[in-house]
Amino acid sequence: MVTTTADVRPCELAAMTRALELASRGPLGPNPRVGCVLLAADGTALGEGWHRGAGTPHAEVAALADARERGADVRGATAVVTLEPCDHVGRTGPCSLALLAAGVARVVVGVADPNPVAAGGARRLHDAGVEVVTGVLADEGVAALGAWLPAVTRGRPFVTLKLAASLDGRVAAADGSSRWITSDVARRHAHGLRAEVGAIVVGTGTALADDPSLTARTGDGSLVEHQPLRVVVGYRDVPADARLRGPGGELVPLRTHEPERVVAALHAREVRHVLVEGGPTLAAAFVAAGLVDEVHAYVAPVLLGAGPAALGDLGVRSIEDAVRLVPREVHPLGTDVLVVATPEPRSAAHASATSLEER
Amino acid sequence: MVTTTADVRPCELAAMTRALELASRGPLGPNPRVGCVLLAADGTALGEGWHRGAGTPHAEVAALADARERGADVRGATAVVTLEPCDHVGRTGPCSLALLAAGVARVVVGVADPNPVAAGGARRLHDAGVEVVTGVLADEGVAALGAWLPAVTRGRPFVTLKLAASLDGRVAAADGSSRWITSDVARRHAHGLRAEVGAIVVGTGTALADDPSLTARTGDGSLVEHQPLRVVVGYRDVPADARLRGPGGELVPLRTHEPERVVAALHAREVRHVLVEGGPTLAAAFVAAGLVDEVHAYVAPVLLGAGPAALGDLGVRSIEDAVRLVPREVHPLGTDVLVVATPEPRSAAHASATSLEER
Ligand SMILES: NC(=O)c1ccc[n+]([C@@H]2O[C@H](COP(=O)([O-])OP(=O)(O)OC[C@H]3O[C@@H](n4cnc5c(N)ncnc54)[C@H](OP(=O)(O)O)[C@@H]3O)[C@@H](O)[C@H]2O)c1
Ligand SMILES: NC(=O)c1ccc[n+]([C@@H]2O[C@H](COP(=O)([O-])OP(=O)(O)OC[C@H]3O[C@@H](n4cnc5c(N)ncnc54)[C@H](OP(=O)(O)O)[C@@H]3O)[C@@H](O)[C@H]2O)c1
Repeated sequence: MVTTTADVRPCELAAMTRALELASRGPLGPNPRVGCVLLAADGTALGEGWHRGAGTPHAEVAALADARERGADVRGATAVVTLEPCDHVGRTGPCSLALLAAGVARVVVGVADPNPVAAGGARRLHDAGVEVVTGVLADEGVAALGAWLPAVTRGRPFVTLKLAASLDGRVAAADGSSRWITSDVARRHAHGLRAEVGAIVVGTGTALADDPSLTARTGDGSLVEHQPLRVVVGYRDVPADARLRGPGGELVPLRTHEPERVVAALHAREVRHVLVEGGPTLAAAFVAAGLVDEVHAYVAPVLLGAGPAALGDLGVRSIEDAVRLVPREVHPLGTDVLVVATPEPRSAAHASATSLEER
Repeated sequence: MVTTTADVRPCELAAMTRALELASRGPLGPNPRVGCVLLAADGTALGEGWHRGAGTPHAEVAALADARERGADVRGATAVVTLEPCDHVGRTGPCSLALLAAGVARVVVGVADPNPVAAGGARRLHDAGVEVVTGVLADEGVAALGAWLPAVTRGRPFVTLKLAASLDGRVAAADGSSRWITSDVARRHAHGLRAEVGAIVVGTGTALADDPSLTARTGDGSLVEHQPLRVVVGYRDVPADARLRGPGGELVPLRTHEPERVVAALHAREVRHVLVEGGPTLAAAFVAAGLVDEVHAYVAPVLLGAGPAALGDLGVRSIEDAVRLVPREVHPLGTDVLVVATPEPRSAAHASATSLEER
């Protein structure tokens, strides 16, 4: 199996860029966003496809169908695909077999499939005599897969912890009021992320104190189409008249204090990206368990001098034991600043990109 | 007295820009940084000067001396000066009289002098038949005067509060250790500010817990020439072996809990810019007293989950009473972010710039 990208043709690189663009049209969710372009020997595109979500044809199959509709002959063609073709019979047949049956002669792959049940497509194609190149525009491919890749690699959802605090690190005033510390620009930004995740998680303390709705809304306040699960962690009940029971995603109460159980339960429901929105007790439990992959800290130019701190006890006693993050992005947002930071050099995603090239 | 800038000649504008450049060569300290350029009728420069610090000639007198040295005739010349010429006999004679005696025919002023004992130079020149234009490049002139202008306008030093906190708003870990939350890039940046101020202020709590030296140092750790006063606020004694008694600025213990008394004592010592470096108790007292003009918050991508918060109690109970700041600048600094914010639209400096134009 060819593992270097030295012999990739310019038209194949261009097709991979196009395939990445197609991939981004797919929905975020349990399945990866994948794009595929079929190329004739002279580099013209014969067909294009992308994955439109669970239960619909994979990108390769969609591209083959597109070529067929256009009356194109794909025998001897090259398939350029952002993610390794799957090799398992899921809700759709294995893409490796579909490509073989169509007579494709060469497959150019962006990112290897880390999913143990789906991987192996490149190997099967290679063993059947198809030329396979992997790792083409792998960094872009990894970025395009977003939370899905680390989630499937590690067998648990990618966890983003959102903090919204004053400059002196408070998430609420002394009387518990927390609306609004951050500006509406920052809140709209945070709603954008809500629309991308599979679940929003809070503790019962926040559910009871703030009566939040935990919905993804547009600028004008209306609900966006995709609504994440609304997960409340802890033993207390969510009141019958809570906003959490109003319009929005499914309410999922999880009667536990263990972050490990929360991510396991959500992984079982095929959630790839979880947004933990607090409060301080739950946030600290996730950090202490090493289950935070990324922190989105919205810092508002506000001084409170009292009120709950953004994070409850982590068990850190001395400055040497501090949880140190690596800042990734700093965005001024209205009057606030968003700092995106990760616990360490992005191990999961980068490791899998590197291993692709090293294999 | 001419108060609009409509009839300012291009060569005078250029000379003001040059005068601002000269001004910035002067030292920060009790006296304003001022620059002056003398122009012949055809716009050529006859002499230049700037104020080199207390006890040395003012910028106008230095420019006249420079012209004399060059053998230039300044009768009928135009003096372009960043700050209104003084009208009082301080350590040097009044500049208004020096300009009159030299036969200067026109004076172009950047910023009016807010100092009640020094102001009046423009009026005296005008009454003696000299053409006076004020408010030329006034915004730049205000900026060049820095903390001096609001300090003299209000009769108290300009106060910068520095906070260095974790993302969750802690300034130390649970055991009190606070070295180092921020990165060395941020610490070097903070040392740059120390070299500019007249005094650094901390509470006895910080003096005892951290044994800081509160000196301004260069990148290699050596002391810079100008060292600010080291002010410790509170009733407890600074130990005999404290670093605060080592090399550095004069140690000034102030046995009070009242921020008003601290700024009054430092104003009496002609300090124009005070840097409050904490801890949380002292910082909160300054914020609550309305004596903070600017906050420099260094936010480090570190999570602590316990330890003292950046600010002690401000008396804020509900989110509506939060002290809201206006962000002015956001600088990524190494791994940290510096947010510079002010309590409200910069009232003092801007008010005086406006009044200049409105007079
Ligand atoms: N500014 C912001 O962004 C923001 C966001 C969220 C919250 N807040 C503020 O935070 C405050 C609420 O703080 P909080 O800490 O009570 O909220 P929380 O973390 O949402 O809820 C804490 C509760 O969750 C349960 N829980 C779940 N996992 C736990 C664990 N590992 N250990 C212990 N308990 C666990 C416990 O309840 P059970 O007894 O039911 O098991 C616990 O009392 C409110 O004032 C709210 O306004 C602010
Ligand atoms: N990360 C950072 O940038 C940073 C900076 C500074 C401090 N810290 C940390 O902060 C902690 C010290 O906190 P702190 O609050 O004790 O320090 P502090 O504010 O420096 O000192 C408090 C003391 O100052 C005196 N004081 C002055 N004005 C007062 C007022 N208006 N009200 C009450 N007391 C007043 C009192 O002492 P008397 O009894 O002597 O009168 C009081 O106990 C240490 O852990 C230190 O490491 C961190």
